[in-house]
Amino acid sequence: MRHDREESVQRAALENVPPFPHVRLADTDRLEAFSDGVFSITITLLVVEIVRPDHEAGHLLDKLVAQWPNYVAFLASFCYVGVIWLNHRAIFSRVRYCDRALHIANLFLLLTSALIPFPTALLSFALQHGNPFDAQVAVALYALISGLMCLAWLSLFHILTIRPYLLEKGIDPSFFPKERLRAWAGVGLYSFAGALGWIWSPLSALVIFLALPVFFGVTSEGLIETRLSLLRRGRP
Amino acid sequence: MRHDREESVQRAALENVPPFPHVRLADTDRLEAFSDGVFSITITLLVVEIVRPDHEAGHLLDKLVAQWPNYVAFLASFCYVGVIWLNHRAIFSRVRYCDRALHIANLFLLLTSALIPFPTALLSFALQHGNPFDAQVAVALYALISGLMCLAWLSLFHILTIRPYLLEKGIDPSFFPKERLRAWAGVGLYSFAGALGWIWSPLSALVIFLALPVFFGVTSEGLIETRLSLLRRGRP
Amino acid sequence: MRHDREESVQRAALENVPPFPHVRLADTDRLEAFSDGVFSITITLLVVEIVRPDHEAGHLLDKLVAQWPNYVAFLASFCYVGVIWLNHRAIFSRVRYCDRALHIANLFLLLTSALIPFPTALLSFALQHGNPFDAQVAVALYALISGLMCLAWLSLFHILTIRPYLLEKGIDPSFFPKERLRAWAGVGLYSFAGALGWIWSPLSALVIFLALPVFFGVTSEGLIETRLSLLRRGRP
Amino acid sequence: MRHDREESVQRAALENVPPFPHVRLADTDRLEAFSDGVFSITITLLVVEIVRPDHEAGHLLDKLVAQWPNYVAFLASFCYVGVIWLNHRAIFSRVRYCDRALHIANLFLLLTSALIPFPTALLSFALQHGNPFDAQVAVALYALISGLMCLAWLSLFHILTIRPYLLEKGIDPSFFPKERLRAWAGVGLYSFAGALGWIWSPLSALVIFLALPVFFGVTSEGLIETRLSLLRRGRP
Repeated sequence: MRHDREESVQRAALENVPPFPHVRLADTDRLEAFSDGVFSITITLLVVEIVRPDHEAGHLLDKLVAQWPNYVAFLASFCYVGVIWLNHRAIFSRVRYCDRALHIANLFLLLTSALIPFPTALLSFALQHGNPFDAQVAVALYALISGLMCLAWLSLFHILTIRPYLLEKGIDPSFFPKERLRAWAGVGLYSFAGALGWIWSPLSALVIFLALPVFFGVTSEGLIETRLSLLRRGRP
Repeated sequence: MRHDREESVQRAALENVPPFPHVRLADTDRLEAFSDGVFSITITLLVVEIVRPDHEAGHLLDKLVAQWPNYVAFLASFCYVGVIWLNHRAIFSRVRYCDRALHIANLFLLLTSALIPFPTALLSFALQHGNPFDAQVAVALYALISGLMCLAWLSLFHILTIRPYLLEKGIDPSFFPKERLRAWAGVGLYSFAGALGWIWSPLSALVIFLALPVFFGVTSEGLIETRLSLLRRGRP
Repeated sequence: MRHDREESVQRAALENVPPFPHVRLADTDRLEAFSDGVFSITITLLVVEIVRPDHEAGHLLDKLVAQWPNYVAFLASFCYVGVIWLNHRAIFSRVRYCDRALHIANLFLLLTSALIPFPTALLSFALQHGNPFDAQVAVALYALISGLMCLAWLSLFHILTIRPYLLEKGIDPSFFPKERLRAWAGVGLYSFAGALGWIWSPLSALVIFLALPVFFGVTSEGLIETRLSLLRRGRP
Repeated sequence: MRHDREESVQRAALENVPPFPHVRLADTDRLEAFSDGVFSITITLLVVEIVRPDHEAGHLLDKLVAQWPNYVAFLASFCYVGVIWLNHRAIFSRVRYCDRALHIANLFLLLTSALIPFPTALLSFALQHGNPFDAQVAVALYALISGLMCLAWLSLFHILTIRPYLLEKGIDPSFFPKERLRAWAGVGLYSFAGALGWIWSPLSALVIFLALPVFFGVTSEGLIETRLSLLRRGRP
């Protein structure tokens, strides 16, 4: 099917007609709508999970203060899903046509993203109730699922690298090859954090877990644009 | 209403004006948005159903490992809904106008798709707790609902076969007549699996239950394109 | 604001420019997306409410059969929300611009539609457990909320009657004035059913409750198109 | 990145080409879809929270009447989220391009909006069960989260003030500078209400809490249009 589509696009370019006549604005409209649905439900359900404390009369404040780790986990998860959405948007605004490989890579990404709240909850529970072995297990699971999510990004970037005819017109063809570096960094660092947390200390892995979404958020428009923008700010 | 619409389209083609002036990009925009909503909620709620195990300190790993059938059921359901969405997208990217029959067939499809997690849960419970009669019942229910879903696909394909004026321009009119074969295969095989599971052995039905979504996933772009693409790969 | 917008549209028509330059495909895109979100969540949550029966080994079938009123309530609610969505789509495919009144009428419609599962559940519970006074109360509440929903439709149709400049080009201006009849029929019949159920017998009200969504489903494309289509079928 | 984009837009305007060739209808399509998802789930889950009362035979009416504060809280929350959505729609119909700052301000807005049901529930519980200290705490929390939401609006309006090249063509550049006044009013009045409720009386804060969404609803199309429209109505 790949050669098929590539030929269609090339033939259409020569004859100056749209390559897939049944494609409306873009082939990715429904992929984007479906993904937005999954991301928006995931992020809204995080809010629902904030516990409304049972309390005796006059003790609401104590109870609210006591469940602060709950708020931290909520904020971290909200930012994480927000960062994933920002990256997803940045990628698919550059894609015009979809093939099956891209759809499957995207479903794999949705699967791993929607799973993130599961190890997050296990981790925050294990850290609060303090059994070291449980914390090791939760850290390893968190690293595993986050690492799988980076593999999903990697496969998206790789498909868009080797099939440049799927991109919108006017997109720099070196954009997605460079993006693969960001995904490799994620795969490597989550694996490292998982090993570190298992062997040495869960808390040291946490630092990497909290830092990586910040990195992916800052670079969500791609490595190139981010570097340019930093250079420009550095200048007077 | 059908003749009405057909006449409108033919008259408009002669006069070179859009047949339904109040239709924007495509008449199916809202059908697609509504269906994407239902599919994305269904697929995200699957993730929510993964149980966060209650465990004594130090026993998180044991508990997580013990609930492995849970993960298998989750993965199978996620892939199933993903495959349904892929097929839905492939069909409606080829449709430009909707009439009431198409809307009703689509609502029927949404009804049966959204029900799938119900017999899946009954089936995985019955298989784990091992009563043979319950497993027979669950297998029969699963076959019934999946078979009804294939009937919904069949009615969609049939409507698009007999009303080709609903399609986008440039779509091969033999596409949907051939697609009906895929739906008939589903109706037949789910009925067979249900009978097999009821009379002989629930486990033999399971093999068909797991194989059919794979078949529908592989052929989601239609029988014709799939055959072409396989032929092409076979060549050197 | 109303005169403001009317003037803009008239001025723009004379000068042959788009009346609201910042409006993209249609002003109703987000109203439709938001409403589709609410409808698709409402309809999917209906499925989630189907109870997975607790059962002793070997008694799954008995339990499944025993909860048949559950399935009837689910099917009725699913069809009802589906019919509401079909009507909503048919209306807003004819609307190009939105003003605040239309937005508020639509929010009122979403409020009443999303509430429908609440009296439905009360009604099915009261009918199964058979206390006549509870059934009267549930029937009256169901009639009240459904009647309010018809008032919301009425206000939508009325706004589109008195502000024809909000419609897409090519829409018959007598379409929405006639649609008001359908909404008045709903207001009247739900009030009648509520009174009948309270004074005489809840079951007689049920007949009206089940018949009205069928009527609104059959006429979802508007009274005019439905009559034409019936006439045409009647002819040889 | 900001200068980058500004230059692109200016260069493109001179050369009469679209400034960002990969942008389809508008850069905000996915921001709007994602936000609509979050808002529609938040508003639909409010309905789910209405309690179906457990009741002895014959006491449904008593139970339904007894939980009236529940309905008031539901209606207030529904209107509040509806007003937020109306304002969001009015803003983003005027925006054509998005940069990272706008995305982050929007995520901050979604975070605070989705949180509103949490302090609302605490407040309605505290007021019903009447401990004055709990009511003070709940009022302060409600004021804090609503105040943060107004800060999110303020940052949105500020970004669109200092980066006018993000707007759709034909939008009055003085629109968003004036909108900032609405957001400042919200920040100020929620702070005042929080202080009042903490020091003096929770009920006096409630009046402000209920009045402010009405104010934001009435002015959702912007201060300018609202004033014009009021002036016009005042005239004969």
